[in-house]
Amino acid sequence: MAKAPVLTPRADDFPRWYQDLITKAELAENGPVRGTMVIRPYGYGLWERMQQELDARIKAAGARNAYFPLFIPQSYLTREAEHVEGFAPELAVVTHGGGKKLEEPVVVRPTSETIVNEYFAKWVQSYRDLPLLINQWANVVRWEMRPRVFLRTTEFLWQEGHTAHATYEDARDYAARIHERVYADLMVNVLGIDVLLGRKTRAERFAGAVNTLTLEAMMGDGKALQMGTSHELGQNFARAFNTRYLSRDGGQELVWQTSWGASTRMVGGLIMSHGDDSGLRVPPRLAPVQAVVLAIKGDEAVLAKVREIGDRLAAAGVRVEVDDRTDTPFGRRAVDWELKGVPVRVEVGPRDLESGTVMLARRIPGGKQPVAADALAALLPAVLEEDQALLLRQSRERRESRTADVATVGEAVEAASAGGWARIPWSDLGEAGEARLAEHAVTVRCLVAEDGSVPEADDAPGNVAVVARSY
Amino acid sequence: MAKAPVLTPRADDFPRWYQDLITKAELAENGPVRGTMVIRPYGYGLWERMQQELDARIKAAGARNAYFPLFIPQSYLTREAEHVEGFAPELAVVTHGGGKKLEEPVVVRPTSETIVNEYFAKWVQSYRDLPLLINQWANVVRWEMRPRVFLRTTEFLWQEGHTAHATYEDARDYAARIHERVYADLMVNVLGIDVLLGRKTRAERFAGAVNTLTLEAMMGDGKALQMGTSHELGQNFARAFNTRYLSRDGGQELVWQTSWGASTRMVGGLIMSHGDDSGLRVPPRLAPVQAVVLAIKGDEAVLAKVREIGDRLAAAGVRVEVDDRTDTPFGRRAVDWELKGVPVRVEVGPRDLESGTVMLARRIPGGKQPVAADALAALLPAVLEEDQALLLRQSRERRESRTADVATVGEAVEAASAGGWARIPWSDLGEAGEARLAEHAVTVRCLVAEDGSVPEADDAPGNVAVVARSY
Repeated sequence: MAKAPVLTPRADDFPRWYQDLITKAELAENGPVRGTMVIRPYGYGLWERMQQELDARIKAAGARNAYFPLFIPQSYLTREAEHVEGFAPELAVVTHGGGKKLEEPVVVRPTSETIVNEYFAKWVQSYRDLPLLINQWANVVRWEMRPRVFLRTTEFLWQEGHTAHATYEDARDYAARIHERVYADLMVNVLGIDVLLGRKTRAERFAGAVNTLTLEAMMGDGKALQMGTSHELGQNFARAFNTRYLSRDGGQELVWQTSWGASTRMVGGLIMSHGDDSGLRVPPRLAPVQAVVLAIKGDEAVLAKVREIGDRLAAAGVRVEVDDRTDTPFGRRAVDWELKGVPVRVEVGPRDLESGTVMLARRIPGGKQPVAADALAALLPAVLEEDQALLLRQSRERRESRTADVATVGEAVEAASAGGWARIPWSDLGEAGEARLAEHAVTVRCLVAEDGSVPEADDAPGNVAVVARSY
Repeated sequence: MAKAPVLTPRADDFPRWYQDLITKAELAENGPVRGTMVIRPYGYGLWERMQQELDARIKAAGARNAYFPLFIPQSYLTREAEHVEGFAPELAVVTHGGGKKLEEPVVVRPTSETIVNEYFAKWVQSYRDLPLLINQWANVVRWEMRPRVFLRTTEFLWQEGHTAHATYEDARDYAARIHERVYADLMVNVLGIDVLLGRKTRAERFAGAVNTLTLEAMMGDGKALQMGTSHELGQNFARAFNTRYLSRDGGQELVWQTSWGASTRMVGGLIMSHGDDSGLRVPPRLAPVQAVVLAIKGDEAVLAKVREIGDRLAAAGVRVEVDDRTDTPFGRRAVDWELKGVPVRVEVGPRDLESGTVMLARRIPGGKQPVAADALAALLPAVLEEDQALLLRQSRERRESRTADVATVGEAVEAASAGGWARIPWSDLGEAGEARLAEHAVTVRCLVAEDGSVPEADDAPGNVAVVARSY
């Protein structure tokens, strides 16, 4: 008789597999208020590593962290017309504070462009103050009708960057820099997720932006997930908040702005990109735990050995954890580490002590082999890099093999419904075709140029629309 | 004619000096919603360094980070009677979400004991799951009637630890461990702030705790600031949320709990501990910028030299910034770095290039002296450690010289009103005396044992009450 699977197989029911994995790997749970989530320590550990890697890249791009209030006066939201139209349906509103009804209700920030601009307008005086490059790590709230843990939650954690520049070109280049050197670099080189870099159509742009750059990834079921966005805001918010600077030639000019964000949604993307029927597979460069050293049995010699190996791996720079909880059966612990997707398991039992070997189990390619205990520390860095590369390759191969070139809206819907992406010339599709796709819950994920680069404009000749179902 | 002071002198008006400093050093501003604050990059940099140092200590104490939702159902708050009584007057309430009135209003977390316990009750099954040691970094909201930036704000940032243990002793020891090895170690050895470790009286305890351990620091004006607290919660929340575990002998037992927090209030404490009439003085171990290398003039050789020195100091492990903004007058930039309290300024002008020296200005002891440029990298680490020690010594000397032993409530009020602390035997003061002090806005900051240690109980023989005005 076959073992009962730990998770609902992906092929049977992908959404249920996703939910099973999140629960069993102890990543998160639903919160008591609809759409909120509790991020458990192992899930938060993934987010913390994303934060560290992202924060370093944001700082390297010259931005500095700051913090703006959670509560925004309702009146701020209404100053930029498209912005309020986009966010009004999703707002949480505080009407009472300190036991009294508030004179003006305040909204819980859904994003911070408005309140940031209120202060940018004070801080920016002259061209010497530009560019002003700010980032904040924060929670935001957008009331969700169809919540799903990590992917779409009423409250989520993110970073949001906000910048002001003297010229259109400088703002455009900075938005592109974040898109490529911060987000794409993180996603490809740390998360091991192949992402398509493109430009959103007018219909899919951020509310208040003149251009939205996006990173789209193909999940295990062929749907798309937007992993992060970087917006050119033009002078829309500057106009609404009168954010002006004294130019070198003495005029008062409106600033040009960008904003950009990536969130805990990336954890969901990680799961759906790399997970398999045994659980998560965490890319080694990201993994909070790269290797776990397991004691198979609780005798003293084994326990001493796992601790010794743990120390040696830690000294070699491996993020390692020792699992000596031998009052829980070994098999159950092994399954648990598989669920959690720790790249490497080093299993040590009494017989290994005699032979001077350990069992090396690799989660990402799969398989087990005995390895000389003394060779482990020298071996692991290369093993981990190999596994990192494999995940990215698998992610890329999935996208390439499941993307079809099509010529009509009908073919595009068919490809998307079969669990893939379709490429169709934007000149053939257009906004009318985009509206027809929407009737089938298919959207244009992004526009890319003929050569695969990010187009300068929606209607640049040769633009291709990449369309798919999405999360 | 004397120069106009940069800040209101402390001796003239301490609260105004504090506000001046925060504004002019660009640490923070008031937010648009009353009581909220915008933390500017330099202020946030101080907080980020506190976070890094605190997070490392929390992890060393075995706790792992997680995240619980911002929104708590109103009904949760009411389950622990003292807790709701303490927090109800300060709550912000969300009544509308996604354009609709909510069925049950939700509160914005003022602290997370209730929602944490809802999940602890699920996660804790047996003694094997204990201790459960969780920390979260989050924003919390407590509606403030008399807000003051960093010290008392409607929204603030903090960490809150929440733990569950199998025994009373284990919980008590863990609360003490956080008190001493996490908080006191941070405050004394990184922030350079002398803190008194003690126990709160019943009147001053956290709402729902059976014991609150506190760290109290004396500010520049002789008032006290509570810098952090670590609570023993007993079984109060466990009872309210039915958080039980299967004991080794098969019984169902309530867990014993702790919670502990430190917040952006520490930034206020840092300012009021170390600031002087020229601005902030940041302890080097904390400082996001330990040394700034300033170009006095903008000629090429000087600019090349400041960059070279900057690189050499960075390579020597100094957190360094290069100030080559020579389109702003040197004097104004020097005053600005003084306001910001960067420990060391290295000033480089054309004449220094000839002599091979630079001017070394030390913010903490004050004074300037020429130093051979080549000797700087080797010299600075010792200079910074000397300055670190000086700040702690000054903080300690202030507390010692301004604390008086008194015998009566009248004398205690007099000492506190004169800008100092008073020590009075708790057996002489008692709860009746404590109530009389309160009429004069004087509170018992904490109880300490005769030998200076933290008492085991409120009424332990020899307990001394330390009383003061406070923030």
